[in-house]
Amino acid sequence: MVGIGPGSADLISPRALKALKEARVVAGYKTYIELLGDLVTGREVISTGMTREVDRCAAAIERARAGKDVAVVSSGDPGVYGMAGLILEMLDREGLWGRVEVEVIPGITSATAAAAKIGAPLMHDFAVISLSDLLTPWEVIEKRLEAAGAGDFVLVIYNPASHRRAGQIRRAVEILKKYRPGNTPVGIVRNADREDEEIIITDLDHVLDFKIDMLCTVIVGSSGTRKLGGFLVTPRGYRL
Amino acid sequence: MVGIGPGSADLISPRALKALKEARVVAGYKTYIELLGDLVTGREVISTGMTREVDRCAAAIERARAGKDVAVVSSGDPGVYGMAGLILEMLDREGLWGRVEVEVIPGITSATAAAAKIGAPLMHDFAVISLSDLLTPWEVIEKRLEAAGAGDFVLVIYNPASHRRAGQIRRAVEILKKYRPGNTPVGIVRNADREDEEIIITDLDHVLDFKIDMLCTVIVGSSGTRKLGGFLVTPRGYRL
Repeated sequence: MVGIGPGSADLISPRALKALKEARVVAGYKTYIELLGDLVTGREVISTGMTREVDRCAAAIERARAGKDVAVVSSGDPGVYGMAGLILEMLDREGLWGRVEVEVIPGITSATAAAAKIGAPLMHDFAVISLSDLLTPWEVIEKRLEAAGAGDFVLVIYNPASHRRAGQIRRAVEILKKYRPGNTPVGIVRNADREDEEIIITDLDHVLDFKIDMLCTVIVGSSGTRKLGGFLVTPRGYRL
Repeated sequence: MVGIGPGSADLISPRALKALKEARVVAGYKTYIELLGDLVTGREVISTGMTREVDRCAAAIERARAGKDVAVVSSGDPGVYGMAGLILEMLDREGLWGRVEVEVIPGITSATAAAAKIGAPLMHDFAVISLSDLLTPWEVIEKRLEAAGAGDFVLVIYNPASHRRAGQIRRAVEILKKYRPGNTPVGIVRNADREDEEIIITDLDHVLDFKIDMLCTVIVGSSGTRKLGGFLVTPRGYRL
């Protein structure tokens, strides 16, 4: 399970690169495979659409059982809403422990890639929540939004919206506004470290004025987050 | 501000490496500078002890004002309890916007580096809390522990203990046990991707039986986290 980071070649770690080079089979969502370009030339490629994760992992495991080195690619970190969990679940389900060797190679996840683009909003305690309710009941997501608000965490929102889901980010903002003022800083980072990168610094009152889709990561400040010189910073409390 | 990841050379991104190579001055906590070895040969090195962050950043900014390329090094990601926030705060305080160019280069943070060692515990929503009360009132930390418990987040604990702070992790476990059963899986990862790496899989009832110090990252499962084949996995909910 190989994390390739946000998408830019210069953020792929040497360990991930080595795994990709040694693999005879590369599996992953087609957009990520495309990001890899020449790196996957000459390999068998297992690439299905976004919602075919189970099929893709089953095919990857089948190759691994046949003795092939397989790289299952996730963007960001494979353990953060990526493929690592599903692979481990399926190995367990099929009783393959000890018969297939596994390694999770971490990557730079969207939370910190996006944060780096807008300054240093994650300098203090933070929470990460996906708004996708494809696999998670919306009540659970709401409960976590409430807890992130009550706990005064900086909040990183993955999968804030998609074609089918426009209402979730609206509801998330509504919940957060129960706990934080409208001028709480918010950053929207779209396509961090990819082509067409877009960066917006705004606040809770205005975040919904901007286009937010599944390529965005949204970072909502805590009560301590400040806008400094066009950046967002959550001070840790050093005395200056 | 350059993130060098957990410490292993093969987890430093090419972008971070390039910044280090181009820098004439490298600033950072001495342990991290030592991890870099030959990479910093021939540079001016600004290296002070752990609690001298403000002095180190001031010296780095002074060099940058003099027109030198300066790499301020943090282990993991510079924006997660690293140096990025402090640098931006000091630039703001000194009115240096536009006079010093800044870039945050993200890195693999301990949360995902440690998670990779124990499987895929962060597959679902998670919170990150530092137990260090050097800069944060303990009441704020307790409030966040309560919220992480109530919100059923997987919890990543940074700075769980130090020589002076043995009680905090005990109190944290006490709080989490109000929300989760004693058999909730817990991973302790010490020195992830460094020499002397140690990995322990245990549970909330037994976590305090193990040595926990400032080199450890502790990951406490949510209600969904399972122990599968020696790994921790928090399933996202795919139907298998």
